[in-house]
Amino acid sequence: MTKRNAFYAQSGGVTAVINATACGLIETARHNADRINTVFAGNNGILGALHEELIDTSQESARTIAALRYTPAGAFGSARYKLKGLEENRAEYERLFEVFDAHDIGYFFYNGGGDSQDTTHKVAQLGAQLGYPITCIGIPKTVDNDLPGTDNCPGFGSVAKYVAVSTREAGLDVASMAKTSTKVFVLETMGRHAGWIAAAAGLAQELHGEPPHLILLPEIPFDRERFLSRVEQTVQEFGYCVVVASEGVRNADGAFLSDQGGKDAFGHTQLGGVATLVARLINDALGYKYHYAIADYLQRAARHIASRTDVEQAYAVGQAAVEFALTGKNAIMPTIVRLSDDPYRWQVGEARLAEVANVERKLPAEYISQDGLHITSQCRRYLRPLIVGEDYPPYENGLPSYARLRRCMASQKLPQFNGR
Amino acid sequence: MTKRNAFYAQSGGVTAVINATACGLIETARHNADRINTVFAGNNGILGALHEELIDTSQESARTIAALRYTPAGAFGSARYKLKGLEENRAEYERLFEVFDAHDIGYFFYNGGGDSQDTTHKVAQLGAQLGYPITCIGIPKTVDNDLPGTDNCPGFGSVAKYVAVSTREAGLDVASMAKTSTKVFVLETMGRHAGWIAAAAGLAQELHGEPPHLILLPEIPFDRERFLSRVEQTVQEFGYCVVVASEGVRNADGAFLSDQGGKDAFGHTQLGGVATLVARLINDALGYKYHYAIADYLQRAARHIASRTDVEQAYAVGQAAVEFALTGKNAIMPTIVRLSDDPYRWQVGEARLAEVANVERKLPAEYISQDGLHITSQCRRYLRPLIVGEDYPPYENGLPSYARLRRCMASQKLPQFNGR
Repeated sequence: MTKRNAFYAQSGGVTAVINATACGLIETARHNADRINTVFAGNNGILGALHEELIDTSQESARTIAALRYTPAGAFGSARYKLKGLEENRAEYERLFEVFDAHDIGYFFYNGGGDSQDTTHKVAQLGAQLGYPITCIGIPKTVDNDLPGTDNCPGFGSVAKYVAVSTREAGLDVASMAKTSTKVFVLETMGRHAGWIAAAAGLAQELHGEPPHLILLPEIPFDRERFLSRVEQTVQEFGYCVVVASEGVRNADGAFLSDQGGKDAFGHTQLGGVATLVARLINDALGYKYHYAIADYLQRAARHIASRTDVEQAYAVGQAAVEFALTGKNAIMPTIVRLSDDPYRWQVGEARLAEVANVERKLPAEYISQDGLHITSQCRRYLRPLIVGEDYPPYENGLPSYARLRRCMASQKLPQFNGR
Repeated sequence: MTKRNAFYAQSGGVTAVINATACGLIETARHNADRINTVFAGNNGILGALHEELIDTSQESARTIAALRYTPAGAFGSARYKLKGLEENRAEYERLFEVFDAHDIGYFFYNGGGDSQDTTHKVAQLGAQLGYPITCIGIPKTVDNDLPGTDNCPGFGSVAKYVAVSTREAGLDVASMAKTSTKVFVLETMGRHAGWIAAAAGLAQELHGEPPHLILLPEIPFDRERFLSRVEQTVQEFGYCVVVASEGVRNADGAFLSDQGGKDAFGHTQLGGVATLVARLINDALGYKYHYAIADYLQRAARHIASRTDVEQAYAVGQAAVEFALTGKNAIMPTIVRLSDDPYRWQVGEARLAEVANVERKLPAEYISQDGLHITSQCRRYLRPLIVGEDYPPYENGLPSYARLRRCMASQKLPQFNGR
């Protein structure tokens, strides 16, 4: 069999463990050096292919590649860049193949969410049309946990662990101060379209009355009166109330709570996010002293508190991508298959890209409590194993010592691309 | 020597390690059971003394007390409640002594910031006036690191580590996305009057060009034009800019940036904090896509990433408080004395309460870079050892397993107090 090169790119919002996937992929490719020559990584994701900016990963030491396993964010740069439909933007796809051809790339590995699986699928289709032999494997990655066809998405377990740990810790803080100070605390989490991340905060609650007391999910239209009455009741019963709000919470009409033409429910110009809004709403209606936190990128970059399960699965899908490619599979995505909840057992499976592209998986109704403001035990059973285990990075001088790459670029062979 | 009881209370904003101080104090008292009978902890701080709500810590197992070492927030409840001057509010002070007398309390341990040291001092003075034999020891605690007389304050090292780690992680995230997405990221930290916490984020930067690029400190009046020009320059040079902003940033006229009569510099009604404001300012002036995080209580409750140095010092001041009391010392506060920077060596010392009460220690000028927007190497030398070492709590099902107290109350012996 001919030795060919591989192209790997990171796509969309990064996670605490996407580099663990890169690590699994590159290490596995190196173990198969008889079949795969060099793994080139796109500089800033797919843009690296369009602009022929290919990071030559063979120039990175084994130690650096190993360090990717515990380094958050996208070590090669990621991009929010969606290739359009084949007919609309054939030039871009053709450019990809020119670059692939110029660098003898026979394997295309694309590590991202739903959009990226769609792109991977299109590349596979076009390769077949053009008669260009290329093996295309999509690799799942998203903190949002919204990809279909897989039990869960690498990246989610770690953000889930971060929000659950943070909710527990901040909850203890509020509980200890509530007598004379803050009575209501709101934590805003990511998850614009699906409530998986906010739901995960629910794991922090083990006993009745423990935080979080209320969870606002995008799947449940925000009911102001019911919510406020529950906040009041919680403060009366426990002395304080911890709310976890997904950034994607919506009104009954489907509009984002945080995006009401710049005005909040009270006509205030709205500068903050959902947490600001919800906290103010409570303060205006009930007068409680409040605090709020917006974890933003801190949550998805928090490698220091990554879930070991998540790290292992992220590595495994990177490894499986190469193994699948080498067995001749094409246009598929490695998936996580759950074999049992308790003890938790899983293995890597596969899904056809045609079936996962552009489909969003929301929190199912049976995972949301009757009142719409918390999670069910069924949801806990699903979520719990995903945050289990710690996988601490090494520290130096009190700080995590993350990989620093050389990022050597392969020599360019083609004229510049004017597409973007 | 007569065996007497002790009273311990937590005061003001809690930290990731104030319970480690409680642990050191209670364990040391238990080792001196021939001298100290029971340690009563105030339920919700000093309010517990006023209302005769005394948590009998002897009802907690040795294992639970040991678990306080790794449990964040205030396990006995804290309070933002400042006793007024002796003459203004003699009734409250007298009530304290009634409660102390009713429960044979001969040791008063008060764990807090500057206000609390002042209260402890007043209690000592009144005890002497009343001829009531009581030993009063203040114990330092504050994430703000603003107490004088001690090299640093227990609680600060852990929040410093949290913001430095978070800045490094979020910085990697922004760096990897900046080509097509967020160019500016603002992290808001605590520190209303002193910039110690924001300064600590500076430790995340090891090489030129690494985040954080700019730090906004309360000690330096905010200069809008200079700041914006530095943001622009940073984005041009490195492709992105990470800003750490203390919540206490002020304008040239001394007003908090986040508190301008409800309007920001553009006349928008201001709902968010400093991060929201600074991010919007940058977006309005330079058009960069931004994100911001407000860590709020997450930072001071983050026991999962506590500094080992901080935990050890927090424990040590609790232990020393008891040891000092038993050697007959009074009206003092155990302090941290730095013996050397590198290798870092420290020991417990002592300061007279009269000298530490109500004094605020700001970031010294020599710790702030010439341009006012970063820290100096001298500052790094001071800060670095305080975040060194990890001290992970035990985990169960993926979450830190923090102490749950029984909180048994001692029987009340006095009529209700109507003061508050």
